[in-house]
Amino acid sequence: MTSLSSPVSPSASAGPGQPEPSAELDALYRGFSDELLVPLWTEIGELMPRTPSPAARPHVWRWDRLFRLAERSGDLVPVGRGGERRAIALANPGLGGAPFATSTLWAAIQYLKPREDAPVHRHTQNAFRFVVEGEGVWTVVDGDPVAMRRGDLLLTPGWHFHGHHNQSDRPMAWLDGLDIPFVHHMGSAFFETGPDQVGDRSAPDRSRAERLWAHPGLRPVARPDPLPNSPIAAYRWEHTDAALDDQLALEREGHPGVVEPGHAAVRFSNPTTGGDVMPTLRAEMHRLAPGARTAARREVGSAVWQVFDGTGQVHVGERDWTVTRGDLVVVPSWAPLAIGTDSGLDLFRFSDSPIFERLHLDRVQVG
Amino acid sequence: MTSLSSPVSPSASAGPGQPEPSAELDALYRGFSDELLVPLWTEIGELMPRTPSPAARPHVWRWDRLFRLAERSGDLVPVGRGGERRAIALANPGLGGAPFATSTLWAAIQYLKPREDAPVHRHTQNAFRFVVEGEGVWTVVDGDPVAMRRGDLLLTPGWHFHGHHNQSDRPMAWLDGLDIPFVHHMGSAFFETGPDQVGDRSAPDRSRAERLWAHPGLRPVARPDPLPNSPIAAYRWEHTDAALDDQLALEREGHPGVVEPGHAAVRFSNPTTGGDVMPTLRAEMHRLAPGARTAARREVGSAVWQVFDGTGQVHVGERDWTVTRGDLVVVPSWAPLAIGTDSGLDLFRFSDSPIFERLHLDRVQVG
Amino acid sequence: MTSLSSPVSPSASAGPGQPEPSAELDALYRGFSDELLVPLWTEIGELMPRTPSPAARPHVWRWDRLFRLAERSGDLVPVGRGGERRAIALANPGLGGAPFATSTLWAAIQYLKPREDAPVHRHTQNAFRFVVEGEGVWTVVDGDPVAMRRGDLLLTPGWHFHGHHNQSDRPMAWLDGLDIPFVHHMGSAFFETGPDQVGDRSAPDRSRAERLWAHPGLRPVARPDPLPNSPIAAYRWEHTDAALDDQLALEREGHPGVVEPGHAAVRFSNPTTGGDVMPTLRAEMHRLAPGARTAARREVGSAVWQVFDGTGQVHVGERDWTVTRGDLVVVPSWAPLAIGTDSGLDLFRFSDSPIFERLHLDRVQVG
Amino acid sequence: MTSLSSPVSPSASAGPGQPEPSAELDALYRGFSDELLVPLWTEIGELMPRTPSPAARPHVWRWDRLFRLAERSGDLVPVGRGGERRAIALANPGLGGAPFATSTLWAAIQYLKPREDAPVHRHTQNAFRFVVEGEGVWTVVDGDPVAMRRGDLLLTPGWHFHGHHNQSDRPMAWLDGLDIPFVHHMGSAFFETGPDQVGDRSAPDRSRAERLWAHPGLRPVARPDPLPNSPIAAYRWEHTDAALDDQLALEREGHPGVVEPGHAAVRFSNPTTGGDVMPTLRAEMHRLAPGARTAARREVGSAVWQVFDGTGQVHVGERDWTVTRGDLVVVPSWAPLAIGTDSGLDLFRFSDSPIFERLHLDRVQVG
Repeated sequence: MTSLSSPVSPSASAGPGQPEPSAELDALYRGFSDELLVPLWTEIGELMPRTPSPAARPHVWRWDRLFRLAERSGDLVPVGRGGERRAIALANPGLGGAPFATSTLWAAIQYLKPREDAPVHRHTQNAFRFVVEGEGVWTVVDGDPVAMRRGDLLLTPGWHFHGHHNQSDRPMAWLDGLDIPFVHHMGSAFFETGPDQVGDRSAPDRSRAERLWAHPGLRPVARPDPLPNSPIAAYRWEHTDAALDDQLALEREGHPGVVEPGHAAVRFSNPTTGGDVMPTLRAEMHRLAPGARTAARREVGSAVWQVFDGTGQVHVGERDWTVTRGDLVVVPSWAPLAIGTDSGLDLFRFSDSPIFERLHLDRVQVG
Repeated sequence: MTSLSSPVSPSASAGPGQPEPSAELDALYRGFSDELLVPLWTEIGELMPRTPSPAARPHVWRWDRLFRLAERSGDLVPVGRGGERRAIALANPGLGGAPFATSTLWAAIQYLKPREDAPVHRHTQNAFRFVVEGEGVWTVVDGDPVAMRRGDLLLTPGWHFHGHHNQSDRPMAWLDGLDIPFVHHMGSAFFETGPDQVGDRSAPDRSRAERLWAHPGLRPVARPDPLPNSPIAAYRWEHTDAALDDQLALEREGHPGVVEPGHAAVRFSNPTTGGDVMPTLRAEMHRLAPGARTAARREVGSAVWQVFDGTGQVHVGERDWTVTRGDLVVVPSWAPLAIGTDSGLDLFRFSDSPIFERLHLDRVQVG
Repeated sequence: MTSLSSPVSPSASAGPGQPEPSAELDALYRGFSDELLVPLWTEIGELMPRTPSPAARPHVWRWDRLFRLAERSGDLVPVGRGGERRAIALANPGLGGAPFATSTLWAAIQYLKPREDAPVHRHTQNAFRFVVEGEGVWTVVDGDPVAMRRGDLLLTPGWHFHGHHNQSDRPMAWLDGLDIPFVHHMGSAFFETGPDQVGDRSAPDRSRAERLWAHPGLRPVARPDPLPNSPIAAYRWEHTDAALDDQLALEREGHPGVVEPGHAAVRFSNPTTGGDVMPTLRAEMHRLAPGARTAARREVGSAVWQVFDGTGQVHVGERDWTVTRGDLVVVPSWAPLAIGTDSGLDLFRFSDSPIFERLHLDRVQVG
Repeated sequence: MTSLSSPVSPSASAGPGQPEPSAELDALYRGFSDELLVPLWTEIGELMPRTPSPAARPHVWRWDRLFRLAERSGDLVPVGRGGERRAIALANPGLGGAPFATSTLWAAIQYLKPREDAPVHRHTQNAFRFVVEGEGVWTVVDGDPVAMRRGDLLLTPGWHFHGHHNQSDRPMAWLDGLDIPFVHHMGSAFFETGPDQVGDRSAPDRSRAERLWAHPGLRPVARPDPLPNSPIAAYRWEHTDAALDDQLALEREGHPGVVEPGHAAVRFSNPTTGGDVMPTLRAEMHRLAPGARTAARREVGSAVWQVFDGTGQVHVGERDWTVTRGDLVVVPSWAPLAIGTDSGLDLFRFSDSPIFERLHLDRVQVG
């Protein structure tokens, strides 16, 4: 992406399709520069590559290091109004230091000490939390306290007020996923503060949203219309785990259901539309049986994977990593991805796929 | 509807908007008749009433009598190819003896003796079974055996092969709901036979469809597209019951969720769209808390209600009935309906509402 | 359909799948009758045929005879409040004298004498007018006067107030198409009267609706949302004619566009959705080049065709007719249809196809 | 946007919500940097502003200067394979020299000398041409030659092969609009070359696409399904002009239709869906009557306006310009826009609004 953010000096390179250097050409290019213009013919290779060439690069972040830095932040950085959250974001090495996992996705570890509150606010960015370990925090979404426990996916769709509070005597950390880089690029960010502390400090096992909506195939007659976001505030691990087990069992019995041999996967969905949980974000849980290996697959759009359990090998583009619980892998657009495991592997995945599908820009290549 | 199916003899009635009787008019009307024509002006009151005036009438059928006749049919009528099903349908008193609960809906009691098979077939009519009592039968839908138990809703969407077999030593009866009258009127019925006996005679607790699809808010990644019918073969009572309980508990705690005071209701839905279980049929379960009474409500489209549990009073149009377990009440289009109970009441409901909503012909009036 | 409207006496016929006659069976059937019940096994052949067997039959009505009877009605029958319209409907010979072209479609000739008004009303039935000859009448839809001329299709979607007035010194007749039989069967008819005369008696060449909406691919920014009905009040013959000519010219040049060789066709559409003009009715214009012959085609759902120009042969089911300007042919559900012409033929067609497509009950077989 | 692309040095700024500087904090921040992490609390003001603060700035480009530089490019820069197009793009002063009008939109002047060909290629970026003056070029889209004339909007949806050739003895210039910056950011660019010259060198007045699709409210029966892009290759000025005139005439007669007093506007639409012409781009034409002035309006998403005819005043954010034929104004996300004219003004507008609407991120504020 260098040429696009540098001053234009195209006359140096008379490659294919480029005019020969000359004084007249220099003058023309100075004219462009003076008028805030840039010719296509010097930039087209960058702007219109044969296949996607995203600035983001494949990378892995290790959970144990993230966690230690989060703990240390707990010692040094207060959480409260202004900074809002004790969250530490992955900064893709291809994105110039910006706190962006990819050009669309934000992934961060958030850390809350015992009895702390993260203050209430709302924003147009869509958000979720995924819990790789720990418990004891309730996220309160529009006044509804939602327990956070290992394996759960918690939603905070855009423009819903939310705060977190730790009810326990232990710190807790989790993964925050948002579309911050996308919304930042698009210029569609709105933000509003609420109270400094969450109002409802009760600690129910199930949120009110779950009690209304998390029954399989059932919806309240009082709310018949489609909703832009899933109303299921929390997707509980017990259900996700059971659904993955069922797929692998069906495969063993000779029936369809899995994505490919030894590879079960469920998508978290909006029960009022059947679509993704939020308009910009897809969330899925994948389970590889021991010995399974996925076909190489590339798709338009970027993704972040987090190991939930087990150990395995991840191949992204030219890179290979062995990953274990909590590790985070970033997969840029169109980078081939293959995953294998000897002993079994559970992975959480989130991506920006709904954006591409809604805009007819999606494309997938397998094998 | 008499005038529409009788020979036209309009000259007798010179009401508002009607021409005066005369010999010339008689000749004109004979000319119409000879040419297979009917004038609007003699029929408009029937064809274009101020508000819907359906031919179907409110009526109640008592489960105990249905069941006794079904048992007797078990003695006298074999089940097998040709007759296909030992099903006995409600014949609305306004519909001239046709086996139609309303002009769109079919409701029947089906009865299967120990070890019997209802042969495999498929048809474009959409079908479901609802179980008010008993167990021991598996309905096999496209080769997938689905257990039937009290409180369960089982789907057989159009053009899916299905047969039933009773694995137990006891007879079983249940409610069949279909869109037979609608499809009959519309001329869209196709039918095909399959094997005389169901192939897969296993008796699993959960169907394969449930194992893939009946996890709250989760769908298999391998099946990402919307489906015209719900893939959830069985909606189990334990989930329905819990969802209704949750709504009433939320109401007691001061939160929204119920339809109106003391009246919880869930709609069985297609998790791939959020819409109704099948394109022509809506299915819901309602629970009235002790002492509750619904507001009078009329809507375009007809419905059949079956008491699942408890006792209550049902008011439809000018009629009032006390109803108890298994009783079936037919509510014609635009007939006001109100239900009350002193001791609590659970009701299953199905209707043709999706037809009207998809065609922008729906209308509702409450109170 | 006889057995469905007659008293049930099934014991007479012990065909395949039927129990043997006996006194016990007679008693059982009497029990059914007493309880308003009908067994499936005696009715299944009628209710669940292998392929659709609609009650409506293929038939042709001749425009010259319709027109003469309409003229005579003009002499004898006033138009005004109560009778509402001087419209004379096709009564399908299979539908027992009811004024229904098919079980869903209404087709009538409407006749208005010089200077007459048909009073303002509205109803939930969807309606259109198609003009096979003449001019001079304005139909006023929600206060917007719409000129009627040969070849034009005029819309009056459900629940829009409308009246007609003849501004000329000559009578005018046209085809009315509605979904009256469908709405009648479904119990969804509402009706309301407006003024006895149309308010706006101006006679503009173009309606306001056309000025806003009848520009190709352009829509007013002030009205960005989808509408259930097309807002184009009138589809003018000059556009329809040009579009058909363009298709046949493209075919001659070797490019796609026609339905099949020598057969051009356009569908009137809702520019805010791309779908049909109204939720229950499809309208199309077809042009056969001289010597063209369509492939035999059957589809679920019924249609009415009116010859707009030329002469041809129509084959429906087992029937064959030579048809000419104004003649009306009724095609029941699933009846094979083939049309040919030596000299060229223009045909208007309307059908109930949108109902089937929205309910996933559509099916087509060609050849 | 500086902090996001600079190395993180947050310890310098202990603002609201920021921890006090300290050696420990420095060490923590070095740890973040080593691990490719960035804390939210130092970046939140940039990432989550109260209201959108896009990097793009309001700016105007003058057509006469663009045109002179394009002419000069015609002298010095050949058009052909490699550089592909003689197109010169607006480089927003807030976007660091990249050839982006806004962070999503590309706007360029393209220039073709007499008898030149721009070679055939295709790409996933959606494109259109708008002609502010001149004629003589045909753009050939998937083999279909489309004439370009003043006032016309020509579409080249993503992944359609296209080339241009100038059939005349005069040069021609026009506006190219694409979603290049969006697709670049999203990593979804694919590109493929076709022949070096367009194949079909005929010069028809109307394209085949127009002959099939540009009839008001009519669509070919042979193509019944929705299409992601409008199949109307060219929206001709005569239709656009007439539609705008009609709106202003309706306003003078007291009827609805205009956006606001004196302000007519049409949206170019996809006749198969009623939606925008392409999934990422909206295109509209606006006409202000003499003396008209629009209400200040801000909306999420960015736009480019080009004066088609007349003279007026444009206010964007804190900037004011007098604009005339061909001038281009860039309106960043959420910047208030007001336009006025004494003598009448026609403006073409394109924007990224469909992206926001499909993702439920749209927001509008008027007045």
